[in-house]
Order: sequence, then C-alpha cells, then structure tokens
Amino acid sequence: MEDHLILCDIGNTSYHFLKGDEDSKVLTQEFDPSSITEEVYYISVNADVDALLQTYTNWYDLRKKIVWDKYYTTMGVDRIMACEAIEEGLIIDAGSAITVDIVTATHFEGGFIYPGLATMQESYRNISSRLDYSLNFELDLDKMPKNSQDAISYGILRTLYSEVMRHDKQIYLTGGDAKALSKIFPTAIVDERLLFKGMQKMMEKTC
Amino acid sequence: MEDHLILCDIGNTSYHFLKGDEDSKVLTQEFDPSSITEEVYYISVNADVDALLQTYTNWYDLRKKIVWDKYYTTMGVDRIMACEAIEEGLIIDAGSAITVDIVTATHFEGGFIYPGLATMQESYRNISSRLDYSLNFELDLDKMPKNSQDAISYGILRTLYSEVMRHDKQIYLTGGDAKALSKIFPTAIVDERLLFKGMQKMMEKTC
Repeated sequence: MEDHLILCDIGNTSYHFLKGDEDSKVLTQEFDPSSITEEVYYISVNADVDALLQTYTNWYDLRKKIVWDKYYTTMGVDRIMACEAIEEGLIIDAGSAITVDIVTATHFEGGFIYPGLATMQESYRNISSRLDYSLNFELDLDKMPKNSQDAISYGILRTLYSEVMRHDKQIYLTGGDAKALSKIFPTAIVDERLLFKGMQKMMEKTC
Repeated sequence: MEDHLILCDIGNTSYHFLKGDEDSKVLTQEFDPSSITEEVYYISVNADVDALLQTYTNWYDLRKKIVWDKYYTTMGVDRIMACEAIEEGLIIDAGSAITVDIVTATHFEGGFIYPGLATMQESYRNISSRLDYSLNFELDLDKMPKNSQDAISYGILRTLYSEVMRHDKQIYLTGGDAKALSKIFPTAIVDERLLFKGMQKMMEKTC
C-alpha cells in the first residue's frame, strides 16, 4: 500500500481528514490525536485543539507556512487555505459561518463573514415564533416575496446572492452547506476538498 | 385643550403612542390598557396584547380595516401600515427584525425579512467568541474588508445594502435602528412616524 500524506482540517466541531483519495470526518470530542502515528499536516480554527496538538511532534501546523502579509492576522486559516487553492475567483465556504473571499491573480482582495444557514434560521426563530420557517431553496430570486417562508428565505439567500453576484467572478463553493447553496448559485464549482488543495499547494511551495 | 385621536403601534417589547404631535413609548410589561379611557386606534404584532385588548371597547383594532387582497395573510400589520403610508418607494423598518417592502403606485410588490442588527451581531457571537465585534457603520462599502470587524459589519450591512440598492427606489427608514442605518443609506428619508401615517390614512379612507 502506498504511503500517503495525511491532511487534516480542524473546525469547531470536527476533524476532516484526507489521506490519498479518501476523506473522512470525526467529531472533535470523539477523537484522540495520539491514535495517529504517521505525519499529519493540519490547519485548525479550534483554540482547544490547537493547544492539544502542540504536544504531538507528528502533527505539523500549516499555519506556520502562511505568508501573512497577503492576509490579516485574525483571518481564519481555513479561509487562507481556500484562497491559496485558487488563482482567481470568489470562494464561499458555507459552514457554521459563511465566509466569502475574493482572489484576483493570486492576490487576496478581501472578504466578509455571514452567519451560517442554520444560525440565520435560528436568529429568526429567536425574534418570534411567527418567523420559524424552513428555508425554501426553490425560491424565485427575481420576485419580491408575498408569503412568510419566502420572505425569510429571500432575507437569508437573496441578500447574500445580490452581494456575491455583483463581483462577477467564478464562484467556488465549499463547506457543509455547499450543495444546498449550489441551488441558488448554479454556475458555481462545488469542491468539498478546496481547503485540502490549498494545503497541498502551500506544502509544495514551502516544504 | 384640543381632543386628539390616540394612535398606538404595539410591538413585541413596547407600546408606541401618538397623540397629536406627541409620541411616547411604554414597555409592554409596564403598561395597563385600562389606564386609558379615551378611544385608541391600534395595530399589534404581539399575540398576548391582541388577546388582552379584545376585552376593551375603547381600543379599536385597525387590522379590521385592512384590504387583505393587497397583502398576504401572515404579513405583519406593522409592515402593512408602513406600505399604506407611501405611494411609491422601498420601506426599511429596522427593529428586532428588519422588514423591507416595496410599493409601486400604491401597489404592494412584496417584501422580505432580515434579522435585526442586534440579532445579527448575536448570531456571530453564538458561532464563535472570535466573531464578537461591534458594528462599524463607517465601513467603506466599496472595499472588500481586510479585518475582522469590517468582515462582520460588511456581512451584515453590505449584503442588505446590495439587495436594497438594486431596486433603485426612494428609501424610507423607520424603526428603532432607522438612524443607525441612515449612515449607510444617506439618501433615505428617515421617518419614525411612518406607521402612524399609514394608520391615519387608513382611518381617513374607511372610518
């Protein structure tokens, strides 16, 4: 069996592994990093896991390889890896937060953060039980809504869509809600391994 | 002293009164409707208050005057009164939720609901303590952000702005956050009594 590099993207809730062409997810609480003896190249936005992994010499933090003058210091490393993965385009990483970043000729132009789809729905519920609706992804984006479900779906999706589309870039979708969002961004490239591609590129460049 | 009509707009947290040219707000929990013996013309989006006011004959519900085929059955009466107040334009009512409604030649074209500014900020905080920032209303809306506070402010304000501006209508701002939002919508007409104007018009038409 070929010996593959192990890559790992660590979020607030899970470890996302890539080994060769196989990827897998394990919940943060259920995973013991000492169970892996091979070399692992990782990124993490999880402060608790960051601290834990310092104690393992076979876990290598790719944050150290980032050329920070392209980015800004409080920017999530996951966003940076996604930006490293492409040369040109707009990246939507739709997880617990939705990050939107623009890259022009390998230059990071800036980006913004929008709450994740589940968080947005929860925020309506918290305002009033009268605003508790599921999202309608079949919504007509070109018509102002005349019912409550669409009024909320439009509030979540159309606002994001209007801002994203005005940049007129090739869209890349990644993260847990990438497939759901591809319904309103039909021309987007859905790539659930976009961050791993950025991690691989960064390793090739600097290791 | 002249005898003025009393108008009242009841939300989830307060009674907003207009008597002549004087307006005042009282918290819902602290107000007893039997303390007013004059006639009051009101609208309410608060189900508890709705039930309570049924028992008072001097409290008159303007909901009964609405011509519903112009609107839809689960639409908030506050939004309807704002629409009745204007003949043409886009209304942003920024309270615990932000409602955006479009009126063309007195016809309601539809509208959407966005979470209120405080709710939006709370939703970022709930995702991660690393996303807990105050809103920057001085944000440059034409530049993709390169710091966390602006990345979040842009996520809240620019998405809404992009959607609102594409309709190319005169904007009317009302509600508790009207003044704050007027910083990003400088051409908007701020009118904190817009709903009362709609209520007055409705009374003139049909009483």
